[in-house]
Amino acid sequence: MKKIKIDAYALLEKIRAQKPVIHHLTNWVTIYDCAHVVKVLGASPVMAHAQEEVAEMAQIAAALVLNIGTLTPEFVEAMKIAALSANNKGIPVVLDVCGAGATTLRDRKCFELLDEVRIDIIKGNASEVARISGKKVRTKGVDATPVDQNMMEVAKKLARESKCTVAVTGAEDIVTDGRKLYLVKNGHPMMANLVGTGCMATSVIGAFAAVEPDLALAAAAALVCFEVATECAVKGASGPGTLKERIFDCLYHLDRQTLDRMQQVEG
Amino acid sequence: MKKIKIDAYALLEKIRAQKPVIHHLTNWVTIYDCAHVVKVLGASPVMAHAQEEVAEMAQIAAALVLNIGTLTPEFVEAMKIAALSANNKGIPVVLDVCGAGATTLRDRKCFELLDEVRIDIIKGNASEVARISGKKVRTKGVDATPVDQNMMEVAKKLARESKCTVAVTGAEDIVTDGRKLYLVKNGHPMMANLVGTGCMATSVIGAFAAVEPDLALAAAAALVCFEVATECAVKGASGPGTLKERIFDCLYHLDRQTLDRMQQVEG
Amino acid sequence: MKKIKIDAYALLEKIRAQKPVIHHLTNWVTIYDCAHVVKVLGASPVMAHAQEEVAEMAQIAAALVLNIGTLTPEFVEAMKIAALSANNKGIPVVLDVCGAGATTLRDRKCFELLDEVRIDIIKGNASEVARISGKKVRTKGVDATPVDQNMMEVAKKLARESKCTVAVTGAEDIVTDGRKLYLVKNGHPMMANLVGTGCMATSVIGAFAAVEPDLALAAAAALVCFEVATECAVKGASGPGTLKERIFDCLYHLDRQTLDRMQQVEG
Repeated sequence: MKKIKIDAYALLEKIRAQKPVIHHLTNWVTIYDCAHVVKVLGASPVMAHAQEEVAEMAQIAAALVLNIGTLTPEFVEAMKIAALSANNKGIPVVLDVCGAGATTLRDRKCFELLDEVRIDIIKGNASEVARISGKKVRTKGVDATPVDQNMMEVAKKLARESKCTVAVTGAEDIVTDGRKLYLVKNGHPMMANLVGTGCMATSVIGAFAAVEPDLALAAAAALVCFEVATECAVKGASGPGTLKERIFDCLYHLDRQTLDRMQQVEG
Repeated sequence: MKKIKIDAYALLEKIRAQKPVIHHLTNWVTIYDCAHVVKVLGASPVMAHAQEEVAEMAQIAAALVLNIGTLTPEFVEAMKIAALSANNKGIPVVLDVCGAGATTLRDRKCFELLDEVRIDIIKGNASEVARISGKKVRTKGVDATPVDQNMMEVAKKLARESKCTVAVTGAEDIVTDGRKLYLVKNGHPMMANLVGTGCMATSVIGAFAAVEPDLALAAAAALVCFEVATECAVKGASGPGTLKERIFDCLYHLDRQTLDRMQQVEG
Repeated sequence: MKKIKIDAYALLEKIRAQKPVIHHLTNWVTIYDCAHVVKVLGASPVMAHAQEEVAEMAQIAAALVLNIGTLTPEFVEAMKIAALSANNKGIPVVLDVCGAGATTLRDRKCFELLDEVRIDIIKGNASEVARISGKKVRTKGVDATPVDQNMMEVAKKLARESKCTVAVTGAEDIVTDGRKLYLVKNGHPMMANLVGTGCMATSVIGAFAAVEPDLALAAAAALVCFEVATECAVKGASGPGTLKERIFDCLYHLDRQTLDRMQQVEG
């Protein structure tokens, strides 16, 4: 791995110009933040989960974001309907495997989704992704558990087997489509004290995937933008409350100069 | 149309003195902000959606706010039960037709609500209201689509046909009961970068409708207060994150002098 | 009653060291704030409400927090399943009787919960707790109604009869297990202008109950921490919007010196 440059700003400009609709079936804890982060990027979030309308809503979207953070079986059925519609339209589907490993239901529903619809990007923290890749990992709720294995190999294998892009977030993020692999080293430890950074990152990935067909590049660029904004936001924040509001401000104002100067990517 | 003065502050004072209970069946994205905006105005928000309790809850309320932003058929049934109870008590019912035009379900459920219960105020952006008034408009998710027609006439006709007040929000807001028409020119373009301003405006309208029987005046005064607060909030905000918190601060501190000086209303 | 000192900081340190998982079935209005307040304390929140997973999720938790703020009958069934699992594991169950007295459904479901599962801590404002203790109080939505009786005696009686700890929040908070009684005089009137302070206080109590078996002490220490943080947050806040973000900041930075100097407890 060596340091590389990716043109994250070019994709951010596309989002700002195209204003893609990002359809979410996400969790109830962070639903506002997921919508808001997509909006401040310049895209147009829509949250709709009724089984009766999700297929139609997915047809006006440019990407679909699924997040199982507060799943129920009925909600996952709506996800499947939305995802099949997205698959038919050919727009990318991102799945945040939030809390995988915490309960049998979460694991089973993740596997059902991966089996029954096409998921284009799987996103989770190390313990969640390890679990989805078949490891016997017991996660502690929705917070990451240390995983003592080579996550890069786990992610690559999962990407190849699932024919998708895998994004593993943490102090260093791994993004791979099974061939290419990006390591994104941006971000700040303070993010771990903030509920919703993982969910927001997934929504940002959705917005980038809406404008860039190379999904590994899209996901890496999304994480660079979100995490550079977070680094900017930490300056001037007095704690995890003011930090969150500043993340939205910094993401809204993100410019090429800041992105190019601060990005820390290896590939 | 010519510039007029409305006494928005007198109604705000009534809210602060009477502390009316505003019962919401709203969407899950902005539910906190809807409650908070009503609270900082000085009113008392209550969110309750179980079909088993909504009729009883509406009986202790002074206004009912409905918002279809994340509707399901069951949720709309609860709205109908609550609205019938509100109709019987004689308190105003406000309907935010959030996302109308995006899916068949949304359109159908809006028309069902308008047919089966008495809606006193319909509120939406231009494309949503155009759709409800029977225009063939395809909205792009929940964000406004430009509508190339005379919205004032569309709103007036809808108000007359539905025997209600219609509020169309945008760069300039139209409020009409079919006879009187107010144009509210307050607000700031930055509001378009913030998820939830539309939903919050609807909740604010609910609070004003609770204290003023002239519902067109109530809705216009509500929009003046909310948007003047937003203009105040923009000063000192560093982006859409800090802006939102400042809107709550400014609404809480809103005084007669500021309101009288900054209001931009035509009638 | 005379002024006493409790070592709230020692318990806060335990939370920061042990990072207990706090499982919530809470209301949809304040769900983010409940999660965030637990996170900034140093604990690990998890929100899960599917009947299919709540028992399993409660098994990885150190405390369970229930809040009926936006209840449905199905949601309360999930609460019972989670609570029975928590009872079996021997972890504390906290119930926020949010809005008790507002509707028949709320009262009935509170009584069902108290009958069918073991509730270790009942938490509410004066009118809610009075209602649960059998008083004929009609609450006004979810905001407190003045109660003209000796709440200390009401709380003590309820604690003895329900064999649990009772926390009554207000300008002065009462915490009692039926024998010991704490009066917490911290907090700030501005908290009444902020949606969610009651729900957040309950989640904080859950986190303290996870690390301290003396539940009256745990609840009193929790309220001291939350309310001292609020007092710190008011300094520098320009209204109820910025105040909320600052509460998270202040709670995150809370130190022994501040807590010892500012606590106002009688016992």
